[in-house]
Amino acid sequence: MMKITLPVIAVNFKTYLESVGEKGLEIAKAAEEVSNDTGICIIVAPQQSDIGLIASKVDIPVFAQHIDPFTPGSHTGYILPEAVAEAGAKGTLINHSEHRLILADIDEAIRRAKEANLKTIVCSNNPEVSASICALSPDFCAYEPPALIGTGISVSTAEPEVVTKAVELMQKVNPAVVPLCGAGISTGEDVAAAIRLKTRGVLLASGVVKAKDPKAVLQEMAESAQKTL
Amino acid sequence: MMKITLPVIAVNFKTYLESVGEKGLEIAKAAEEVSNDTGICIIVAPQQSDIGLIASKVDIPVFAQHIDPFTPGSHTGYILPEAVAEAGAKGTLINHSEHRLILADIDEAIRRAKEANLKTIVCSNNPEVSASICALSPDFCAYEPPALIGTGISVSTAEPEVVTKAVELMQKVNPAVVPLCGAGISTGEDVAAAIRLKTRGVLLASGVVKAKDPKAVLQEMAESAQKTL
Amino acid sequence: MMKITLPVIAVNFKTYLESVGEKGLEIAKAAEEVSNDTGICIIVAPQQSDIGLIASKVDIPVFAQHIDPFTPGSHTGYILPEAVAEAGAKGTLINHSEHRLILADIDEAIRRAKEANLKTIVCSNNPEVSASICALSPDFCAYEPPALIGTGISVSTAEPEVVTKAVELMQKVNPAVVPLCGAGISTGEDVAAAIRLKTRGVLLASGVVKAKDPKAVLQEMAESAQKTL
Amino acid sequence: MMKITLPVIAVNFKTYLESVGEKGLEIAKAAEEVSNDTGICIIVAPQQSDIGLIASKVDIPVFAQHIDPFTPGSHTGYILPEAVAEAGAKGTLINHSEHRLILADIDEAIRRAKEANLKTIVCSNNPEVSASICALSPDFCAYEPPALIGTGISVSTAEPEVVTKAVELMQKVNPAVVPLCGAGISTGEDVAAAIRLKTRGVLLASGVVKAKDPKAVLQEMAESAQKTL
Repeated sequence: MMKITLPVIAVNFKTYLESVGEKGLEIAKAAEEVSNDTGICIIVAPQQSDIGLIASKVDIPVFAQHIDPFTPGSHTGYILPEAVAEAGAKGTLINHSEHRLILADIDEAIRRAKEANLKTIVCSNNPEVSASICALSPDFCAYEPPALIGTGISVSTAEPEVVTKAVELMQKVNPAVVPLCGAGISTGEDVAAAIRLKTRGVLLASGVVKAKDPKAVLQEMAESAQKTL
Repeated sequence: MMKITLPVIAVNFKTYLESVGEKGLEIAKAAEEVSNDTGICIIVAPQQSDIGLIASKVDIPVFAQHIDPFTPGSHTGYILPEAVAEAGAKGTLINHSEHRLILADIDEAIRRAKEANLKTIVCSNNPEVSASICALSPDFCAYEPPALIGTGISVSTAEPEVVTKAVELMQKVNPAVVPLCGAGISTGEDVAAAIRLKTRGVLLASGVVKAKDPKAVLQEMAESAQKTL
Repeated sequence: MMKITLPVIAVNFKTYLESVGEKGLEIAKAAEEVSNDTGICIIVAPQQSDIGLIASKVDIPVFAQHIDPFTPGSHTGYILPEAVAEAGAKGTLINHSEHRLILADIDEAIRRAKEANLKTIVCSNNPEVSASICALSPDFCAYEPPALIGTGISVSTAEPEVVTKAVELMQKVNPAVVPLCGAGISTGEDVAAAIRLKTRGVLLASGVVKAKDPKAVLQEMAESAQKTL
Repeated sequence: MMKITLPVIAVNFKTYLESVGEKGLEIAKAAEEVSNDTGICIIVAPQQSDIGLIASKVDIPVFAQHIDPFTPGSHTGYILPEAVAEAGAKGTLINHSEHRLILADIDEAIRRAKEANLKTIVCSNNPEVSASICALSPDFCAYEPPALIGTGISVSTAEPEVVTKAVELMQKVNPAVVPLCGAGISTGEDVAAAIRLKTRGVLLASGVVKAKDPKAVLQEMAESAQKTL
């Protein structure tokens, strides 16, 4: 299912060894099967050098983990939006907590992504920054408290009132931006809680990529999302 | 006049040789005289190592040109909000076009400035980024199109409709933030035009610091601001 | 010819539109033909998302344009040495003039590249920085004066004495590092001049990638290199 | 004693609250007394906004903690070498572990410091990086393993063989550069050990600035240095 529908489960492959090359392809194929089975949209965000490999072999949306705010030209080693699009990416993360950008570059990266037909998930670290990002009109804004990232303690169950505040501030500034949340999401219940808090999905990484059985975790998450709708 | 009143003329000393040490003090003294004479608030933003010297000798608000978003600790070479406050600064520029910050750091720098009793002028490069900044609740937001900075072509006369759009977007997101504009401001008419466009003042640098007679330029600007009110 | 032999012609694809995806593959195939024809080693450095595509279809060394100095883990959007190696890269540029790194990160990136079996071409901007880089024991050090990059005015003909000085300083600090030069290289004579100045090859970009006939330019360069040996 | 003599004890004030403003001046005065008493050169490196205050009141060398590699001009919020020199600084730290620079900027910062008559202490994180820095001809190179900074476990007693290796590599590349070491230095014996390992002094911070009695610690260190010569 290539179309992006809501709610969405976005899986960031980070630079884990568990997601490099063929191993990443396996996780992407598992995501595709779960998505086909449940009808829930699952996005995968592999490493830059794996975008082409994975996008050519699965029929779910592949996102880059980062793009740079540049037009084509002399920018050795940077990530051109047009290049990831041609490799098969349908969108990109921007400003992940582990890859924060200068404000003016977030703005420009969103513009460049639109020009290259890439959807944008821009990450934020607190409710105010979430609102700030929504003023730049990305497609999605994913609120992720840095302290919970990678912990397995889910933002949606540990800090429900902060998620609610983030969603409210985002909606006030720009209701067209789709709110997501992330950090510590590792179970179906974490996903269900996120949806009940009025986000339209989750961004996660280790909870799936480092799981013993990524497919089983995704299946549980997608079914939980289904039931919560 | 130490109190910050509106409209405001903020003079950024940058790292011009013309504003180092005693030369910077002279410009600050000229600003003080003009401010006392006209009743218009003039802020000066000297280099970090001149804050103490200038703040101890003039009775107008002295701002830092930058602070770092850190709490006291192990941050060799960075600018601690408490340190510039103790040296005599009453506020600080943040995210100037020549010193752009990561979004999360702008947010944190504004919080840290408040804790150190520093007022904040956060700079933006276009109307959308201006709105984005206002979501973070600084005291002032100064819209400065980078292409006009240092040119002598004034943003307030060359791009009035963009200034108007910036002010509107800022007010919509957060009406408590005071809108300023800057870039190319070098005459009294540039200041008057800025005020007519509903900004509450200007941020400038070379137009005063590199002028043959900085005091004469400031006098003309302050008088022009007075008449426009 | 997959082995890296000297002299070498390294072609940096940058983020030019002319080198994205299939267009980049065409240039790489032209380089492979010239290399097979002349016996001169030609390295191609495509964009990150094209490494897999190109490495799977040509039998010459493919390099990344950049790697990050990280071990596997939580580094969203960064370039893991192991990932580009698994995609087929045999080496990487580091610290290109358009992508300069913190000194400690250059050191760590070289170590990480070795661990991932990637050869390293580290770029420098003047003779002293070239010597500084050689103390870190990369495989190659490419001296490229930033002012000439992309101009078509060749470093090897415009500044022969600076190239000579750079090579001498490099050899003095670490004779095991192979000296290259770059900037403005666009003809066979530029390559020949570089070799006569005791470099063991060139790093170039627009001279080939933006040429009307990249293969013809590479052919002329490789033949010129052959004759100069 | 304003002249820089060897061995040297350099005290980095970092951005500790214990060293802001008048408190920093007190530490600097203690350092001056100890230096006068023992004849050992003590350098103090206060925060940027305290350079003028401290340099005007003590007769020992005051260093900046950082300069930027810029010439005078439009660089809002950055540290101009000429400005810290005019405020009274005699030198500067560069590339401290907490403020690492791009390699080309270290090179340019050293050049700019020389033009502004500032001595340079450039910091390194391992023996190879120390050698790399020495190729750029700073006045001093201070090897500081990041893992020991701020721990109170002294580099000179915990890792003597690495200090020896660093000094050897530095001397091999450029014997004109004065080797220092730092990290965890907090007692006279730590200083003595550093000198016995053929460094010509130490760089430290919390060991003095956060001590209950900074003067007593400095006195013990200076006497220990004296006896070791």
